[in-house]
Amino acid sequence: MTNSISMVYNEDTICALATPNASGAIAVIRLSGKNSLSIALKHFKAKQKSLSQKNIESHKLYFGEFVDGDQIIDEILLSYFRAPHSYTAEDVIEISCHGSTYIQQLIIEIFLNEGVRMADAGEFTMRAFYNGRMDLSQAEGVADLIASQSKMAHSMALSQMRGGFSDKIKQLRTELLNFTSLIELELDFAEEDVEFADRAKFFELIDNLKNELRSLIDSFKLGNVIKKGIPVAIIGKPNAGKSTLLNALLNEERAIVSEIPGTTRDSIEDTIVIDGFTFRFIDTAGLRESTDTIENIGIERTYEKIEQASLILYVCDISNINKVNVDEVISEFRHYLEDENKHFIFVANKIDHLDEAPPKLKELIDYETVFVSAKRKENIHLLASTLVSKVKDMDFDNSIIVSNSRHYEALKNSLDSLLHVEEGFKNEVPTDLISIDIRQALHSLGTITGEITNDEVLGNIFGKFCIGK
Amino acid sequence: MTNSISMVYNEDTICALATPNASGAIAVIRLSGKNSLSIALKHFKAKQKSLSQKNIESHKLYFGEFVDGDQIIDEILLSYFRAPHSYTAEDVIEISCHGSTYIQQLIIEIFLNEGVRMADAGEFTMRAFYNGRMDLSQAEGVADLIASQSKMAHSMALSQMRGGFSDKIKQLRTELLNFTSLIELELDFAEEDVEFADRAKFFELIDNLKNELRSLIDSFKLGNVIKKGIPVAIIGKPNAGKSTLLNALLNEERAIVSEIPGTTRDSIEDTIVIDGFTFRFIDTAGLRESTDTIENIGIERTYEKIEQASLILYVCDISNINKVNVDEVISEFRHYLEDENKHFIFVANKIDHLDEAPPKLKELIDYETVFVSAKRKENIHLLASTLVSKVKDMDFDNSIIVSNSRHYEALKNSLDSLLHVEEGFKNEVPTDLISIDIRQALHSLGTITGEITNDEVLGNIFGKFCIGK
Repeated sequence: MTNSISMVYNEDTICALATPNASGAIAVIRLSGKNSLSIALKHFKAKQKSLSQKNIESHKLYFGEFVDGDQIIDEILLSYFRAPHSYTAEDVIEISCHGSTYIQQLIIEIFLNEGVRMADAGEFTMRAFYNGRMDLSQAEGVADLIASQSKMAHSMALSQMRGGFSDKIKQLRTELLNFTSLIELELDFAEEDVEFADRAKFFELIDNLKNELRSLIDSFKLGNVIKKGIPVAIIGKPNAGKSTLLNALLNEERAIVSEIPGTTRDSIEDTIVIDGFTFRFIDTAGLRESTDTIENIGIERTYEKIEQASLILYVCDISNINKVNVDEVISEFRHYLEDENKHFIFVANKIDHLDEAPPKLKELIDYETVFVSAKRKENIHLLASTLVSKVKDMDFDNSIIVSNSRHYEALKNSLDSLLHVEEGFKNEVPTDLISIDIRQALHSLGTITGEITNDEVLGNIFGKFCIGK
Repeated sequence: MTNSISMVYNEDTICALATPNASGAIAVIRLSGKNSLSIALKHFKAKQKSLSQKNIESHKLYFGEFVDGDQIIDEILLSYFRAPHSYTAEDVIEISCHGSTYIQQLIIEIFLNEGVRMADAGEFTMRAFYNGRMDLSQAEGVADLIASQSKMAHSMALSQMRGGFSDKIKQLRTELLNFTSLIELELDFAEEDVEFADRAKFFELIDNLKNELRSLIDSFKLGNVIKKGIPVAIIGKPNAGKSTLLNALLNEERAIVSEIPGTTRDSIEDTIVIDGFTFRFIDTAGLRESTDTIENIGIERTYEKIEQASLILYVCDISNINKVNVDEVISEFRHYLEDENKHFIFVANKIDHLDEAPPKLKELIDYETVFVSAKRKENIHLLASTLVSKVKDMDFDNSIIVSNSRHYEALKNSLDSLLHVEEGFKNEVPTDLISIDIRQALHSLGTITGEITNDEVLGNIFGKFCIGK
């Protein structure tokens, strides 16, 4: 690891398609680097007036022809973002052309022939990072934002991109850094045995930092849940209608989300987005007492999955209420019903088969019960809304949530170092040794925002971006 | 059919995603209509200054936050195109946001909640047409441009979009219209038996128009070829290596075209783009004399396909030159060799099996022969370049080529009407009857540019567009 950002990066001009690689109404091609403007102007004939490097204005849209010699390639809109007032903080050109893949390729080829290089994945954002436009966790927020598929993932990524998390980390780092200076001053005067740094205050600071780090580390579980989907276990006795219910929910999704075409259904099976929240449904084996060993293993796994779930849907066949022993269910799942981190919802299924009011109705209503017919898709929207309202109850709008495993690791390392520091003080370890642990804690925090980084880490981060960003 | 464009179209504000419907670095969402600006400003907080309908400038890019109430949705670039200086000639807003499908949907949903309507396929271009920004054949050029996958299709569509074809049609129509006025003036003075329109000049005009129409009609065959691909027949005796050659060409394609990902291979089997030209390879049965009826039918079909082809590749096994009777081949295909609309190329295959110079080498070289090894992929690039050079020889750069079957039909109808007019004059049919045919000829020409149209035709044309254009 190097201790500072390597400032040696390619200063050549790069280009890429910034819009998805397909045919569409329009496409946007982006150039960044010091030759962007001169190269673009060589191939652009503005309609209104002759454009030059001198008279072109930043942040304006110019209509005209993209040309290659005498040949007209397309009618385009060209815009210029003068450094440093651009995404990369370099000179940037954006070309909005007709969305034929042929034209997209042709324009990019013309730029390549001018010595422009195809941008690597994430290279525009990497340049923004190198040029101080954003720190590393903000850059990671950009990638997360583009990948976001649900309301929560989106708002987490947006907050990270806008620097909410970075500010927090920088604040923690500054507090620690101020104290470190004092500690290291002591080292300079080691012979004189003075204490510039008030130990009591230092313990207080470490305590604060530990709490802050722990709360961030704890938030990772939630962050991960938001990124991957809120786990929902659908449980119940065999033939209660669990699969039918899941299918009904999958269909309901289409009615609830807007009709705009888009990816609302994840490739992971049984992940659906309802009202901006991703739910990950966990398939479970039917719960019944069994002497069959293999079936018992399945049931054991079901309980494990219930353990991981944030929401539990207990499905019962209400038309056969005599077989539904509500008290038994309640006593079996009491610890989940009382767990404030879990939401337990009764789903009284098969209301279409119900002739009279179920005898245990009162008990059911005392708990949260949704009456549905999965088969006839009745009240499914009600169940979907209930799921969403439970998630909204979780209320994590105002707190910072860690969703990136790289950040999680760095926070844990920082906490470990702080624990060493604390222990060191208690055991009267020499200050110069303690100082190493403090430096290590600072270092770990610095890797989050990229104040400390190395090429491998950067390669990993930006390699996951899409081309053109 | 109505005789004028229906000017009653929805004046509401429409929106659509203008970039391909997928995740990417950025996405562009477009609004058009009189409320575009006020609605967009309601959800936009510019970074630099507070924007209002009064101080916003057209054709400028504003960086800021897209918001919904208190909630920040994304950091975006907003641009405003003040009517009539926009694509649709209405007020247009373009929003360039991060390319997450979630964000795309969210922004569109927010607009829909503001009473904006999702644009139909091609509705932006339809509005451009209604507002006189372009005529119908230009609008069709836009759709063709977006669909274009090869150099020729691209340049045909571009020329059509830029009005090259429209100008030609308008010129023909004006000429005819001027004369028609004179003819119809005669009708007003029918009692007096005067001839305002000089008959000799009129016959000259009709002759000119007929020639112009015929040349446009004839160009359709070529236009269609360019759109669908230049037909290439690969023929030869069985085991000459026709399939291996085709496969080698299909591989070569990747080396010749740029490495930029994109659709270079059409979904139609055996259509490839080399150097910007689409070639459509026609599979043929091996040519040999046979007494087998079914095989003879196959061979008959082969000859039919040769008839359709613009390029013929005659493949022979040069390593077995004694079996290759060059004279026989030449005499069999002499009429193709001499047909200036066809290009006949000898492909001497299996040079890897060749021990000594082939005895008939001289005769082969007299004709156009490319020596290759399809198996070892030797000289395939040479053959590919030869194909491209033949197409370049066709030279249709400066002439107008009709590629749209609707235009083709209209031109044929117009020509038919003119022939009736001519015949009418010769047979001394009363001027008022002739006048009907002249009107019909004018009408047919008018449908091309959309001076005359109806909703069904417009529906057909714009329905084929992608959403967002």
